[in-house]
Amino acid sequence: MRTEETRTEAESSGKMKNAGRMRTIKLGERGLALGDGSLMVIAGPCAVEDRGQLLETAAAVAEAGAVGLRGGAFKPRTSPHSFQGLGEKGLELLAEARERTGLLVVTEATSTENLPLVAEFADIIQIGSRSMQNFPLLTAVGKRLKPVILKRGLASTIKEWLDAAEYIRCAGNEQIILCERGIRTFETMTRNTMDLGAVALLRHQCKFPVMADPSHGCGRRELVPALARAALTAGADSLLIEVHVKPEQALSDGQQSLNPMEFARLMEELREMALVMGRKLVDLKGGHHGAAA
Amino acid sequence: MRTEETRTEAESSGKMKNAGRMRTIKLGERGLALGDGSLMVIAGPCAVEDRGQLLETAAAVAEAGAVGLRGGAFKPRTSPHSFQGLGEKGLELLAEARERTGLLVVTEATSTENLPLVAEFADIIQIGSRSMQNFPLLTAVGKRLKPVILKRGLASTIKEWLDAAEYIRCAGNEQIILCERGIRTFETMTRNTMDLGAVALLRHQCKFPVMADPSHGCGRRELVPALARAALTAGADSLLIEVHVKPEQALSDGQQSLNPMEFARLMEELREMALVMGRKLVDLKGGHHGAAA
Amino acid sequence: MRTEETRTEAESSGKMKNAGRMRTIKLGERGLALGDGSLMVIAGPCAVEDRGQLLETAAAVAEAGAVGLRGGAFKPRTSPHSFQGLGEKGLELLAEARERTGLLVVTEATSTENLPLVAEFADIIQIGSRSMQNFPLLTAVGKRLKPVILKRGLASTIKEWLDAAEYIRCAGNEQIILCERGIRTFETMTRNTMDLGAVALLRHQCKFPVMADPSHGCGRRELVPALARAALTAGADSLLIEVHVKPEQALSDGQQSLNPMEFARLMEELREMALVMGRKLVDLKGGHHGAAA
Amino acid sequence: MRTEETRTEAESSGKMKNAGRMRTIKLGERGLALGDGSLMVIAGPCAVEDRGQLLETAAAVAEAGAVGLRGGAFKPRTSPHSFQGLGEKGLELLAEARERTGLLVVTEATSTENLPLVAEFADIIQIGSRSMQNFPLLTAVGKRLKPVILKRGLASTIKEWLDAAEYIRCAGNEQIILCERGIRTFETMTRNTMDLGAVALLRHQCKFPVMADPSHGCGRRELVPALARAALTAGADSLLIEVHVKPEQALSDGQQSLNPMEFARLMEELREMALVMGRKLVDLKGGHHGAAA
Repeated sequence: MRTEETRTEAESSGKMKNAGRMRTIKLGERGLALGDGSLMVIAGPCAVEDRGQLLETAAAVAEAGAVGLRGGAFKPRTSPHSFQGLGEKGLELLAEARERTGLLVVTEATSTENLPLVAEFADIIQIGSRSMQNFPLLTAVGKRLKPVILKRGLASTIKEWLDAAEYIRCAGNEQIILCERGIRTFETMTRNTMDLGAVALLRHQCKFPVMADPSHGCGRRELVPALARAALTAGADSLLIEVHVKPEQALSDGQQSLNPMEFARLMEELREMALVMGRKLVDLKGGHHGAAA
Repeated sequence: MRTEETRTEAESSGKMKNAGRMRTIKLGERGLALGDGSLMVIAGPCAVEDRGQLLETAAAVAEAGAVGLRGGAFKPRTSPHSFQGLGEKGLELLAEARERTGLLVVTEATSTENLPLVAEFADIIQIGSRSMQNFPLLTAVGKRLKPVILKRGLASTIKEWLDAAEYIRCAGNEQIILCERGIRTFETMTRNTMDLGAVALLRHQCKFPVMADPSHGCGRRELVPALARAALTAGADSLLIEVHVKPEQALSDGQQSLNPMEFARLMEELREMALVMGRKLVDLKGGHHGAAA
Repeated sequence: MRTEETRTEAESSGKMKNAGRMRTIKLGERGLALGDGSLMVIAGPCAVEDRGQLLETAAAVAEAGAVGLRGGAFKPRTSPHSFQGLGEKGLELLAEARERTGLLVVTEATSTENLPLVAEFADIIQIGSRSMQNFPLLTAVGKRLKPVILKRGLASTIKEWLDAAEYIRCAGNEQIILCERGIRTFETMTRNTMDLGAVALLRHQCKFPVMADPSHGCGRRELVPALARAALTAGADSLLIEVHVKPEQALSDGQQSLNPMEFARLMEELREMALVMGRKLVDLKGGHHGAAA
Repeated sequence: MRTEETRTEAESSGKMKNAGRMRTIKLGERGLALGDGSLMVIAGPCAVEDRGQLLETAAAVAEAGAVGLRGGAFKPRTSPHSFQGLGEKGLELLAEARERTGLLVVTEATSTENLPLVAEFADIIQIGSRSMQNFPLLTAVGKRLKPVILKRGLASTIKEWLDAAEYIRCAGNEQIILCERGIRTFETMTRNTMDLGAVALLRHQCKFPVMADPSHGCGRRELVPALARAALTAGADSLLIEVHVKPEQALSDGQQSLNPMEFARLMEELREMALVMGRKLVDLKGGHHGAAA
């Protein structure tokens, strides 16, 4: 088993206020402690498209300091006529990328049917926005001993989001990561509206680690760095960022994906900014980068 | 098999404009033709609670002129600590009510797991708002030869709703009934905001019959009759109305349920109003009530 | 003075429930009693554009049974580069149309500066959606003895709307007509989302007469008749409908305007439907059309 | 005249990307250059309540490094029964506070009637959210040679906001500061939802300086520091923060006001964080604090 939850109190970490924070989540075989005050970044393409694309992207994000690789094998798409993902083949490619880079694999389960397969390959199982109130799926993922990213529903309140987390917790799994990914508003110049007030609120009131996804949060590549920095300073424990080796050729979400060079530059900014906050950007190369590095 | 689709053109019916309307859906063994210009009402409790409640309500709504009995056996609830429904026991009670009254059974499938069981008991399968983008469930229900009520998502656009219907249609099932049940807005004095513009628009542009659920649309018993009338005059083919023998004791949604007397009074109003529009309220007693009765 | 308020109880009118309704508003020199259970329709172009357009439209809507003529002389436009209205010249044309037809003049005041001029010409002063929380304007119109149509703000709650009405009432003017004109939602296939639940709620809980504007409520000509009927059956005391002699040439809102023939047909439908509800469509030709006619 | 616009290009400032940024706005007699890459903070109470409260707060925020004092003398309130502000007396107190501290005075004009008076006292005129589409007021403020803060409407899109700014610009005033203050969403655990994507977008695409108001943006004191930091890192040129000497006794918005000690602590955090970004927190004591200090 790659992951395991520890019920130890989060240690005080620099200037981070962790009052009320009750637990960290240990990720992968190395047991990286998400929620301990450090910053962890997960990056990769919206969808796994082919071997070359995935391995190249994985190598780039690992090099830049990510700890996890995101990539969808089962894609929930608004229209049945859109690309639906590579399925099991995609999962195998993710596993190969993990072998080569050491990155944690983060990928979405879209149904109780594909959950067992996803859980076999993933280090962290993602439940997408459209599934936030798929209660049978929440219960099923709650019966597994894997960390879960629970994305906020497109138009859900924080209360409904926490109620959805409660379905997972009730079923026995407390390794829950709440991921803010933008909510639907009247604005059309951005894809969604990133609710960083929710990130700040959860940091204060909720025991689960908080993740932010600025890529879906705005839907525009040129704004992702600004929102990633903002999410960090608002208190996010982790960031989920879309990176594609050739964004202009992506099968989905290309307009919101960074290329590897843009991602590397952003990671440098985040590393410096985390330092000012007394936080450390954790990567795979030897634990903590930052003040103590 | 209780239902079957007919690809005949909808006949002209009094003053109803049916241009663009391509098909009707035959419901139940009697083959009631939903979408032919008549009005059909489905009523019953939010949840099946116990035998007495269900049979009493069923008798009352059949007497008042409903053609179908709604009642949830599997309930998708925001919190895991709320009443989740009676499950298979609830389905059996619905079947018993059908035996006694002749009412069509309308009940929700919340997962691919309970869909086979639900499909065995139901005449019309309901897909709830929270499941509108549960794509595996849409595909699964699309492989069955039963009419499906597809409720609009809480904050979904009409475009997304039609895309969801397309998942069902693509999988092989064209017996789709689109149900407007109110959308989320900033208003708090009503539970949701009934979008009757959507009802009118779908009547003009979409081949599927349109249903309206004024009970969820406003969440307040005293407003249900006004919105039911409004939905009829906006062009709804069918209405879905919550009725409970003792609304003040309901386990869920009591504040939006009519009692049998209020429902009977509303049915009289609808019958008269349909007449003015050249439409007929269809009931179980002998087909059409109305102009031609 | 053209209008005056009467504090008499609304008389019972057929099947209309008027419980809690405390007052009617007398409109114009004839003293038409808005809020007494009858239905009154106000129609006309979005903006007064020129003499021919206005007089022709006025004649047509009067002939079809409207009691009032709407037309903007001062137009609040999102962009400063859009047509802003004819100003005082437009008001003079409205007055001329009144002379010829007997129609009440309904037009908008957009500022405390143009209010005195508007009040001199109008029988009913309109406060537009964008001005619903223009508190100095509300107070100023509250000091005048003219009926006021207070349109609901684009994204306002019913509570905020009633608070805005309270500004007018506090300043001394109780002749307030609340006009639902659609609220902003995520839907893009219609311009706004008509909130007929609000119409029904206000009928139950509020002493002021309720008006509905289906033209702005959906923004699509082909849906206006369905929403007008729905608003009537939901309980509206009055309807505000955009009519233009040549909608395709209108300087604003052409796509939501009926032509005179479409309007006349709608009025016939409304007259019949009002009858079923025990209500009367009032026109200028001799008071009440309908049951008692 | 206290302020004047300069049409010089914004100088490059550290790591700040200013491409597309065309102008800075000179504030007050000292000519502080808003939009040159530095950070300026304006702070103070929601409403001017009394002399002691205002002078004490002013001294505290000046000491902590603010350059401007905010405080409402004319308050637009949802209900006519709420405290409406001290009017001219409030303006006089603001002027007295300026005399004592050197702080720029920022206060709201709510109508064309009070605009001349407000303009006489204010260094920067605020147009509030509810007035964003009060077009006569926008035009009137556009005819004055004073910097204007244009707050985004409660449910306005960025496009509508820029159209509103265009009313001011067209009338002759280009000294426009766009202030994001949170938009209305379904969330109820925060007062509004801060749209930092809009801040980032405007930084990229718009020539006007951008301000952020985290106090209204979340409505909860404990979240203000996190959102203030986030707004800075998202690219805001300026922050507007509510500070009250005794938040628990404030006549309005107490629950979102920092006390002087909390504000001083936040200013320290902002100063450090600005440094990392190559930006300088400007205060009244001698220009720039920060890298070059």
